[in-house]
Amino acid sequence: MMESLVVLKTGGHLIDNPPALEAVLRDFAAWQGPRILVHGGGKIADKLMEKLGIVPKMVEGRRITDRETLDIVAMVYAGLINKNIVASLQSHACNAIGLTGADGNVIPAGKRPVKDVDYGFVGDVDPGCISADMLGNLVKIGLVPVMAPLTHDGAGSLLNTNADTIASSVAIALAKIFRVQLVFCFEKKGVLRDPDDDHSVIDFLDEPLFRQYKDEGVITAGMIPKLDNAFAALHSGVSEVRICSPDGLKAGQLGGTRIAGAQDPTAQ
Amino acid sequence: MMESLVVLKTGGHLIDNPPALEAVLRDFAAWQGPRILVHGGGKIADKLMEKLGIVPKMVEGRRITDRETLDIVAMVYAGLINKNIVASLQSHACNAIGLTGADGNVIPAGKRPVKDVDYGFVGDVDPGCISADMLGNLVKIGLVPVMAPLTHDGAGSLLNTNADTIASSVAIALAKIFRVQLVFCFEKKGVLRDPDDDHSVIDFLDEPLFRQYKDEGVITAGMIPKLDNAFAALHSGVSEVRICSPDGLKAGQLGGTRIAGAQDPTAQ
Repeated sequence: MMESLVVLKTGGHLIDNPPALEAVLRDFAAWQGPRILVHGGGKIADKLMEKLGIVPKMVEGRRITDRETLDIVAMVYAGLINKNIVASLQSHACNAIGLTGADGNVIPAGKRPVKDVDYGFVGDVDPGCISADMLGNLVKIGLVPVMAPLTHDGAGSLLNTNADTIASSVAIALAKIFRVQLVFCFEKKGVLRDPDDDHSVIDFLDEPLFRQYKDEGVITAGMIPKLDNAFAALHSGVSEVRICSPDGLKAGQLGGTRIAGAQDPTAQ
Repeated sequence: MMESLVVLKTGGHLIDNPPALEAVLRDFAAWQGPRILVHGGGKIADKLMEKLGIVPKMVEGRRITDRETLDIVAMVYAGLINKNIVASLQSHACNAIGLTGADGNVIPAGKRPVKDVDYGFVGDVDPGCISADMLGNLVKIGLVPVMAPLTHDGAGSLLNTNADTIASSVAIALAKIFRVQLVFCFEKKGVLRDPDDDHSVIDFLDEPLFRQYKDEGVITAGMIPKLDNAFAALHSGVSEVRICSPDGLKAGQLGGTRIAGAQDPTAQ
């Protein structure tokens, strides 16, 4: 029987709301056992760029990470946000260690190839290249990795990388050595039947139910990419995915929407 | 026989000179065996504060780390500088991991008590409180710690901390489990008989020689605090201290000035 490990992703809106983030960190610190936190970047980098008079480079409505922007996100994501999360977790007796993908070479990535658009210093991650053994070793010596949304190219450069991608890739990579539960914590209480009604949480989803709800128009466009990613993680060895709000993280039982693969013996 | 470990401190002027820093990192990466890099902050934080219109707070000529300044040094030291050093070392096949004192709780510190001056978020380190075992565990799983000049108070706040202090405190703490060599790499080729003559390096110093050179006026005021620290480290279990320039780091034999305690059997 494999040991269990939780990968918790906290979204950008929480990073921008210090009391809400602190509540998530307090709950996360109180959990026991192997666990990894992945955090997004929030709006702090945008605000710093604005203060410095740096105009974001956009191509076809998408953000480009040029050298100047990369330096900003390295400062904000790996310095300010990551280290303050680590210091906060330490104050709650959780032995956190802050990492980018460069640290311990845990996430080597490929700079996104230039096709129609050159996204600049943006990294694409192959879960097969993640150093699951090194992450596992850190966990085994009692540490709780806290991952910033940055990877590296192995040639000396950091790369800006989507935090959801890091969370699901790390979860997939660690599924070789742990029974992995992947939790996305965001502003909604879970996958909702009615986006305007926080009490309409769908407790459980598997692929037949997901197809049914999509056909019925119950699950709307915004959630579909998230759920496609969730099922992709389940197909790659992750045992369970959960989507919930900070309220769903309280000790004991995780709340929100539980998403399980076809093989899950506890599927309803 | 204890295993050997080197603690290398690189000074601020190297941080501000990317080609010089890169040369140091290339040499450091080529070394074998347990080793730790401690880096200073350089002038990048000052430049960022200037760009943001933040006026440094000074009291009696000394810098105060207020909340705003702490955020800047967290970004620059732990984000920009630390992670770019880690990415560079990784490109030279050195499995670096960037740390502040908060990561893995490796350096808990005390916020400097307010006496005549309130220095703000500045940490004082007691080598006895350093988690030598955790640093040792990281080294044992094949990692090379790269330490930014930040510690934490255990109550959720980072603290700005002098990099020389971190280097000597880490060296002292690790002397319980390794035979530690502490190397300060700075702009001069070593301790000089004549500050204006780079060829006047004093190859070896022990305490009787240090006293003699001080009495003769050969060693001048600027070097005395550095050497007092060096001898304090030697009194606390560090086996050897070396002061050298980047030229003194080439593989094989370290250059510069070798400083040894009274117990050193190889003392001349």
